[in-house]
Order: sequence, then C-alpha cells, then structure tokens
Amino acid sequence: MSDVRVHNFSISLDGFATGAGQAPDAPFGHAGERLHEWMFATRFWHEMGGGRGGSGGTDNAFAAMHGPGVGAEIMGAGKFGPPGWQDDPAYKGAWGADPPFHTPVFVLTHRPRPSIEMEGGTTFHFLDASPAEALKRAREAAGGQDVRLGGGPSVIRDFLAEGLVDHMHVVQVPIVLGRGVRLWDGLESLEETYDIEAVSAPSGVTHLTFTAKSR
Amino acid sequence: MSDVRVHNFSISLDGFATGAGQAPDAPFGHAGERLHEWMFATRFWHEMGGGRGGSGGTDNAFAAMHGPGVGAEIMGAGKFGPPGWQDDPAYKGAWGADPPFHTPVFVLTHRPRPSIEMEGGTTFHFLDASPAEALKRAREAAGGQDVRLGGGPSVIRDFLAEGLVDHMHVVQVPIVLGRGVRLWDGLESLEETYDIEAVSAPSGVTHLTFTAKSR
Repeated sequence: MSDVRVHNFSISLDGFATGAGQAPDAPFGHAGERLHEWMFATRFWHEMGGGRGGSGGTDNAFAAMHGPGVGAEIMGAGKFGPPGWQDDPAYKGAWGADPPFHTPVFVLTHRPRPSIEMEGGTTFHFLDASPAEALKRAREAAGGQDVRLGGGPSVIRDFLAEGLVDHMHVVQVPIVLGRGVRLWDGLESLEETYDIEAVSAPSGVTHLTFTAKSR
Repeated sequence: MSDVRVHNFSISLDGFATGAGQAPDAPFGHAGERLHEWMFATRFWHEMGGGRGGSGGTDNAFAAMHGPGVGAEIMGAGKFGPPGWQDDPAYKGAWGADPPFHTPVFVLTHRPRPSIEMEGGTTFHFLDASPAEALKRAREAAGGQDVRLGGGPSVIRDFLAEGLVDHMHVVQVPIVLGRGVRLWDGLESLEETYDIEAVSAPSGVTHLTFTAKSR
C-alpha cells in the first residue's frame, strides 16, 4: 500500500497555517509569505522555478522530500484558488500554466467541474468526496506511488482524524499570527499514534516529523 | 534595571500550558505531568530535590537557568494552589514546607492574605495588583537581582502584553493536548519585539527563547 504524505506544511508558533482575510491577492491572508520564506530560500525552491542557487542545508533536505515517490496530490479547494473561484468556469487555479505538481491533482470541492490538463504533467481533477473516497481515487491515479496531501489545514485535519496520514512534515515558523486557520484543533492525543521528531534549523524554523506508529 | 525572566515554561504543540480540569490532585488538568517530564529528567531537577543524577545535556542547560540571578518571583494564583485555595485561611501553597523558590514570591490574587514565611528563604506575599504594580513590588524585594515570572499562561500573557518581559524560555513538548489554557492567545506579532531562537533537544522537546529587542 502506498503512503499518504504531508510535506512542507508551515505553521506559526500559535499553530496557524493560514492567516485571516484570504483573498486573490493574499492567498495566506495577513500571514503573507512569512510562513514560507524558509522554503523560498532553499535550493529546492530555486530549482523548482528553473533557477539556481539557494541554501543546501537542513531546510533544503526537508523541502526536497516534496517530490520523489509521489504519484498524485490531494488538495483542498482553498489551495487551488482564492475564495469564489468556483464562480468562474474558466478558472485554472492559482499555480500558473505549469503547476509545481507534475502529477494528477485531486481538488476537493463541493462544486466539481470537468478535469483540466495543464503543462508539465499536472492534471486537476475535482471531487466532492470523503477523505477515504478521495484517497481511493488518488491511489488509483498514483500508479503505486505515494499520495501527497497538500493541505490546507482543514483537509489535513480531516485526513488525520480518519487515520489516513502515514507521514507528516510540519514546519514551525517563529512568528505569532494570532488569527487564521489552525492545524491542531481537534487532534488531541495525536502523539499516541505517531512517532514525533523535532529539529531546529539555523534559519530559525523547527521541522517536526510525524511517522505513523502502525506503519 | 533588573530583568524580568520566564524559565522552563512548558507548552504542548498546540500551545496549551495547562490542560483542562485543574484540581487539587491534577494541578495541570488532563495534561498531567507530561508537559514537565523533560525537566524531571534533568540534573537540575534531581539536585533541587536534594538528590543526584539526571541528564546533563541541552535540557539541563536551559533548566538550570531558573535560579541564578533571580531575587524574587511573581506567580499567578493558579500556580500557588488549586482552584478554591482562597477559601482555606490556613493553606500554605502546593509547594511543600521548603518551596523551590528561596526568594520572596508575589502571588497575584484578588483575595490577598497576610504573608507566609516558609523554610529555605521563600516568603509568599499576596497582591491584588496590576502587572506593573506587582513588578514594582517584586523589584524592590529582589535587591537589584532579576524577577522571575513564574506563570501560569494568563499571567505571562498579561506581562507580555504590557511589554514587561525581557527574557522568555518556552519549552514545546511534542504532545497535542486539545484543551486547556493557551499561552499564545492575543500575542499577535510578538516576533516584532523579540529575537527568537529555537533548538530541539534529543529528548524531543524544542527550547524557544525570546529576547526583548529593546534590551
């Protein structure tokens, strides 16, 4: 059975994965890009954009685990686009013509639409489905490889609550957001089913990995 | 001017410093002792109890900063004793005959009582006062040394909100409590006024230090 993996999922000290006030020009609300600056500085990110350079240390080692072995992604509607995208039938997502997924991507939405084939191997499929149903579809599309769970926080919570996540990499950024959408709500005693490791990087962020004990 | 310092203040991944359901036999509620096991394992803790042994690594280095240079402590009513202690005029606190403070301790309560002198240099004073007023009293008693702010979370939040904390050491324990009293509420943008460092220890906890930028 292939694994379900979460990578590079950034949260603030107070556990918010997005800020308040998400909008087309503010996909992470008042958090802005502060949750992801650690990743933008890595070689992984530079090379994903076709460039060179970037840091090659701890942050990069974690960030680079994002791609290998992944055959499909599942994401929430809020990661595909800003609030209201469902009202625009021609909308093709917030990720540009060549999205950084390069696999089938299953977008969870209560208003599905026909699939969209993008450049670079990414095809967006739209599902109104439970976590287990969506995972079944994604596993079929992944061709034996792992399924990446792309977020946002409420999608990850739903999958965790049903015990469907095998590996989770959370990056804690030393800022206090105060408002937004929390990752941890409703996950009491998560440590009972996961082995948890923590390592702080010189950049100031702390990488937390959760490995399912039942694996 | 002497500093105001917070030491060994443990929180869960989701930011709770105490669990739900605090009671005389459960001072941290459903969290139990899980937030403080990292500290119980240190040489600092063993020696404070008059014993020997304990770990001498990262956790101990941070834990041992608790005492030196501190001339007084300020604590909330909930750290002095369980809910309802104000109704018992003979109550002398949850810390034994020889409390581990060895200085004047100022207990914030809306129902002050006469001071209590304990063994080992600890004297409990009871104040119904604002953070700034309490700090003025504690500084006078500290004889030029620093004032330790002992918690709980709501007391620390109040002092942080007024910009009265110079140094804060928070220990993040890899458990998800789900319920209780949060440290971070209302502290949006705390990173703007503090230099923050993080270091994970082999025990699994992550030490976060906050150093006021205006120092």
